[in-house]
Amino acid sequence: MQTILIIGAGKSSTYLIEYLLHHASEKNRFVILADVSKEIAEKKLKSQKNALATDIDLNDIQSRKRLIEKSDLVISMLPAFLHPIVAQDCLDLGKHFFTASYESDALRKMKEAIESKGLLFLNECGLDPGVDHMSAKQIIDREKASGNEIISFKSYTGGVLAPESENNPWKYKFTWNPRNVVLAGQGMSRYIQNGDLKYIPYHMLFKRLEKISFQDVGEFDAYANRDSLIYRAIYGLENIPTLLRGTLRRSGFCQSWDVFVQLGLTDDTFEMDLPKKFTKREFLNAFLPYHRTKSVELKLQELLPWVNETIMEKIKWLELFDKKDLPKTKGSPASILQAILEEKWKLNPEDKDMIVMQHLFEVNTPKGLKKITSSLVCKGENQEFTAMAKTVGLPLAIAADMFLVGKIKEKGLKLPVMPAIYEPILSLLENEGIIFKEVVEWIN
Amino acid sequence: MQTILIIGAGKSSTYLIEYLLHHASEKNRFVILADVSKEIAEKKLKSQKNALATDIDLNDIQSRKRLIEKSDLVISMLPAFLHPIVAQDCLDLGKHFFTASYESDALRKMKEAIESKGLLFLNECGLDPGVDHMSAKQIIDREKASGNEIISFKSYTGGVLAPESENNPWKYKFTWNPRNVVLAGQGMSRYIQNGDLKYIPYHMLFKRLEKISFQDVGEFDAYANRDSLIYRAIYGLENIPTLLRGTLRRSGFCQSWDVFVQLGLTDDTFEMDLPKKFTKREFLNAFLPYHRTKSVELKLQELLPWVNETIMEKIKWLELFDKKDLPKTKGSPASILQAILEEKWKLNPEDKDMIVMQHLFEVNTPKGLKKITSSLVCKGENQEFTAMAKTVGLPLAIAADMFLVGKIKEKGLKLPVMPAIYEPILSLLENEGIIFKEVVEWIN
Repeated sequence: MQTILIIGAGKSSTYLIEYLLHHASEKNRFVILADVSKEIAEKKLKSQKNALATDIDLNDIQSRKRLIEKSDLVISMLPAFLHPIVAQDCLDLGKHFFTASYESDALRKMKEAIESKGLLFLNECGLDPGVDHMSAKQIIDREKASGNEIISFKSYTGGVLAPESENNPWKYKFTWNPRNVVLAGQGMSRYIQNGDLKYIPYHMLFKRLEKISFQDVGEFDAYANRDSLIYRAIYGLENIPTLLRGTLRRSGFCQSWDVFVQLGLTDDTFEMDLPKKFTKREFLNAFLPYHRTKSVELKLQELLPWVNETIMEKIKWLELFDKKDLPKTKGSPASILQAILEEKWKLNPEDKDMIVMQHLFEVNTPKGLKKITSSLVCKGENQEFTAMAKTVGLPLAIAADMFLVGKIKEKGLKLPVMPAIYEPILSLLENEGIIFKEVVEWIN
Repeated sequence: MQTILIIGAGKSSTYLIEYLLHHASEKNRFVILADVSKEIAEKKLKSQKNALATDIDLNDIQSRKRLIEKSDLVISMLPAFLHPIVAQDCLDLGKHFFTASYESDALRKMKEAIESKGLLFLNECGLDPGVDHMSAKQIIDREKASGNEIISFKSYTGGVLAPESENNPWKYKFTWNPRNVVLAGQGMSRYIQNGDLKYIPYHMLFKRLEKISFQDVGEFDAYANRDSLIYRAIYGLENIPTLLRGTLRRSGFCQSWDVFVQLGLTDDTFEMDLPKKFTKREFLNAFLPYHRTKSVELKLQELLPWVNETIMEKIKWLELFDKKDLPKTKGSPASILQAILEEKWKLNPEDKDMIVMQHLFEVNTPKGLKKITSSLVCKGENQEFTAMAKTVGLPLAIAADMFLVGKIKEKGLKLPVMPAIYEPILSLLENEGIIFKEVVEWIN
């Protein structure tokens, strides 16, 4: 009997758990679901056979190791900075280790030891990173195998609202980790276009947008996502003249969000300790120039002359002009802004989220230039069964299942960028409704 | 015989060394000058009696402690991050410790031990911080003693060029640490105006300027300098409605510098590794949007529409539009920009630098509102004997001298904000030509 240990029973684990439980009895497997809160873990398991809910205290080395000891494969759904702790235990105890997070330097340092012990440590096997790698690499490998040359690859992903749930002026709500949404894009974004290296600082990011459209769900803004340059090596496209990874938001969102960026409200580098009765209006005013008589509204429009009525309406709707107390007065500007947004950008029980992903390729072929557009649209069912949880959790669940039945045979520290890993996963994701539509256009 | 150990014989130590050597023989003192390079230390000492030049390896604990052991008082002119190492030695060996740098948390942790050993650890006793504290606090204490209430205090300092040496389009050259100039203002600047807390993010800093003028040397731009709020406690102005510390640059400088800030050229958060033959023009282009045909110049003006011909001339003069190789291709954008600027903003042997400082007070008195403007202008003599070295080094030298002759009796971890310290120093600084001019205006 094989045992899978899942650590973290939060929102994004819903589909992952369901899939693995579903396959547990027929495949003679046992699933242990560990969470800081045993109650949450129990709730997710319901009263499934072949499964056990337990609490876990990551600081308690003994009990942590005892739990990992019992397992064959560990899936960590913990916040990314905690992965190395669990990974080290897995390495020490000879267990396989899977995550949906970016491969970290800490993991890279374990590379040789992982290989020598014949283990598989698979990272970046969620949505983004994950499905993006797999679906893109499938096309890249196919085109290369045909002898074609990929001269441009742009890839965009967004976790947004389904159009039917875009029921606020921002057409946006938190469908994943609010902190990550507020801090998204910080640092210098990097990509390459027609051989020119390009760098965009954070305060320019939400001004330098592209338009990306989907046949069924309309237009989105795209902004460059972190360091695209490292993907040249990962995708085997070392000499490609154009490579860009981007993030999608519904059209109009980015320009409005840029107000917060420009004012400094997304800053996370220092702690404010504001007076207890500080209002949202005073908070906004603190980031505007002083004037003896001018209103907050006027000062905002004078400081950022591109702020139009539509944008003003969105800020008003967030109650940032209101003389209402802040939800919290201690913390970084970003954390205070997050608390304000969490009150307003909460998913209602029936709200549906949506994942949009699009790969754009330009391929030189003997028959001329081929443009490939490969698009994924995946809608959630409700507040709990989100498209985000589905597209993050299912690739990981399928990878774990395929590995345990022997259909995935890779070992070592890996990303899902080789056919032996992505082919079985993409094929089973199609059964679950995660399907890319490909459109080809020829330019001669 | 008392022994003073000066660690660091760089540019800003020139006046410090001269002053202490001058007083050494008459006061039966010995001066040890230690530097990483013994040669540099020897050059500064010339062949002065009562003095010794030596090299110092800060990593060699034994020899470091042997040197400190021999001394009564240690002056550290090292980069600020190295102070705690020397300070700890001084604490262990029972030696007094003086710097011109900001008091650090590491030093604050030693506070009780310093007091219990009866030592004086004096920080922030240079120019800024230093002369600014002392000259401001002298006025603050005087007004308070008269029963007056200070309702506004703004203080500005700049290390710039003397007007006669403003012989390039930027009217600026490096008169102190180039790295600090390039990174100046990063983080969130904070102050209070008429009771309103104000926060300015870095990318807004060089747009939100004030004009400050000096009778003899004209107009300057001022931008907010770091966290002014902490000075409410330091200056004993806990409830003051307006407190701002700012940095001065010649009018027009800040708007042009803002081009680099907006493009991301001052970013110091990641390392670039550019192709060996990358040109300055390509470097600039890397921070501009891609366009198939548009020139670098046009893209710059389209991205930042406020860039006028005057600004364009300044950038041209730096050769950033030229197809010449970068002076370095590895390092953060800020470090590459610094290397470019160091080629162009170097002081010529006869160039004179200048320190400008201005305190603006608004004081409620029984006779009405009193506006006090206290200004310092100090010009350097040439490339070596700079106003910067003079105003940083002399306060420290005088403080050390006054302490050793017993005119300063304070002990503990201190800033020069009490009359017992600042009065003798300010009085002797006047003899050296560092003189504030005070103008009072009454508003009834």
